[in-house]
Amino acid sequence: MNGPDLGQPKDEAVRLRDVISTLLQGQAGWAAALDREASVSVVAGAEAQDDCAVLHVHSPLDVVIGSDYVRGSKFFLYEQGLLDEYDIGWYLAAANISDVAAMGALPVALLSVIRYPSDMTDLAFEAVVAGIADSCANVGALPVGGDIGTAERLFLSASAVGVVEPGGALMRSGARPGDLVCVTGPTGTAGSALAYFRAKAQGGPSLRPEAEERLLRPWRRAQARTGEGRVLQRSGVVTSCIDTSDGLRGALEGLAASSRVGLDVDAASLPVPTAVLEVADLLGRPADGLVLGDSVDFELAFTVRPADFDALTADLSTADCGPPMVVGAVTQDAGTLAYVRARGQREGLPGEPWRNR
Amino acid sequence: MNGPDLGQPKDEAVRLRDVISTLLQGQAGWAAALDREASVSVVAGAEAQDDCAVLHVHSPLDVVIGSDYVRGSKFFLYEQGLLDEYDIGWYLAAANISDVAAMGALPVALLSVIRYPSDMTDLAFEAVVAGIADSCANVGALPVGGDIGTAERLFLSASAVGVVEPGGALMRSGARPGDLVCVTGPTGTAGSALAYFRAKAQGGPSLRPEAEERLLRPWRRAQARTGEGRVLQRSGVVTSCIDTSDGLRGALEGLAASSRVGLDVDAASLPVPTAVLEVADLLGRPADGLVLGDSVDFELAFTVRPADFDALTADLSTADCGPPMVVGAVTQDAGTLAYVRARGQREGLPGEPWRNR
Repeated sequence: MNGPDLGQPKDEAVRLRDVISTLLQGQAGWAAALDREASVSVVAGAEAQDDCAVLHVHSPLDVVIGSDYVRGSKFFLYEQGLLDEYDIGWYLAAANISDVAAMGALPVALLSVIRYPSDMTDLAFEAVVAGIADSCANVGALPVGGDIGTAERLFLSASAVGVVEPGGALMRSGARPGDLVCVTGPTGTAGSALAYFRAKAQGGPSLRPEAEERLLRPWRRAQARTGEGRVLQRSGVVTSCIDTSDGLRGALEGLAASSRVGLDVDAASLPVPTAVLEVADLLGRPADGLVLGDSVDFELAFTVRPADFDALTADLSTADCGPPMVVGAVTQDAGTLAYVRARGQREGLPGEPWRNR
Repeated sequence: MNGPDLGQPKDEAVRLRDVISTLLQGQAGWAAALDREASVSVVAGAEAQDDCAVLHVHSPLDVVIGSDYVRGSKFFLYEQGLLDEYDIGWYLAAANISDVAAMGALPVALLSVIRYPSDMTDLAFEAVVAGIADSCANVGALPVGGDIGTAERLFLSASAVGVVEPGGALMRSGARPGDLVCVTGPTGTAGSALAYFRAKAQGGPSLRPEAEERLLRPWRRAQARTGEGRVLQRSGVVTSCIDTSDGLRGALEGLAASSRVGLDVDAASLPVPTAVLEVADLLGRPADGLVLGDSVDFELAFTVRPADFDALTADLSTADCGPPMVVGAVTQDAGTLAYVRARGQREGLPGEPWRNR
């Protein structure tokens, strides 16, 4: 059939044949390489529509795999009409690929589970698939299949697959006292967007349209730090790494717990995006709580010895990645995360970590 | 804390630490081998609680990955109290591993997404995880992580990972005219269970408790045909394969479509389990519709040349697997699935395929 079909939505079998096979064709033979010898190629991808996708691993390497479900509070912006189906498809892929980036791995493939209400239009379904496909293409990965079908509401889940040099995956454990604590970029904009639009929906004040757009950007076109992850991995000097998908505070707590160390965060060094400042001012909330709290900016938080920092910054620059930002230091005081004010006062970290929501 | 906690359910972070890490420990170094040379080992599993699990691939091989979501009509029995949390955890893993078995691959790892209502008790959550873990152990696979968190209702999804000899994955395509169409075992019991308990919930007649138990068995302890899948793969003579998780009719339609062939199903050869006959009699429905229709018995449907059938049967027997059952033959008439009655009448296949639900 040609043109948009505005009548009865297609059933699963037809969507597999007409949408998935059309949008996701030509995958067989696609390859991704860590170097000249270590590579992975697609034997059967989405178009094969088999029980599983098949990837050929040409030589010994490590395969990393993670899963993320997308719904819950993150769907507020979708339910408000501020994100569309393409946006949440893009977001689903980026959120999952971010976990691969945090391991320092090269993203290769994505399996997605798309469950939709039975009255979802064909155009809306196609938009979800197109968002997933474009988000994968944005980082050089392939959407190789998964599961589609109906559900009471829209549910999205996925698993991302990456490859990394044997023994080379960046873990959360490994941070040592004296290491610098760094982030690949500022955090808090995505969480500020949620805080702002929630308050606005309840009758709160409004920002200008340009400021609203700035808040929505990290939700609409989330960028997993795949290039940065590879540079951090190849450098050989990064001692631990995690993504900030549970907020910066949650990420730092994760690093500290896995590495059995403490962290001092320097209040004055914390990068605060303009969009966060605007929301903080408007809502009368402290900006640092928004920067550290529950957010889904897909930056990487990592640790590195001070002596290696300059070389790592140069490596990132060579790869066209921005400079890392130092936000604190690793301490011996296992489990203690301190927020160090300008005059040296030590407080608990502001912001709500994801798990308290 | 010791003993069951009957107060406030633990939050995600505590469940990760106390439940996941406790139930799923000791994974690092675990290995699975296709043969002496081709193997996979776990670098970081569930206990590492990192952004991703890490599997080391020691030599060139093919990695197969599939995803299945579990909810919808399959949850009816859970909502009726006929399946508990352990049962659905077991089912989630088996359903996903069945996709790996259908590719002829050795199951290696499972990533699960467990989203639960915020009032789910710790005991219930632990039962889901224990069901997943035991179902994986039942086929020699490892539950290496995934995603947990809250949702409006219980949602389960997973991705299974397997490995297979390079180029050796069994695909849905490859069936050729003249091949025999076989199944590894009878189908329809799981679908009959749904039909029976749905009718009973609406005031329909009852079976004896033993008969009810027989209907629930494939739901409570679903068995993916992993051993059979490996024998079919190693035989080198199986031309196509698929699992029957969408019902036998759905499976046969999938084989026919991917292989661009037709299939004749011999009505007299169709195996009809006793449990299906009992439900068919009780509800006044044709048994063959239940055998072929929407069901989730995780058998494998496959094709093989007649000349190779006896040797394959011997291979299965050597591996302690039951004999394959021939249910029909592949024809040249692409896309036509015929149900051939004893006197040669040709009809359409009975039963509702999954996609019409």
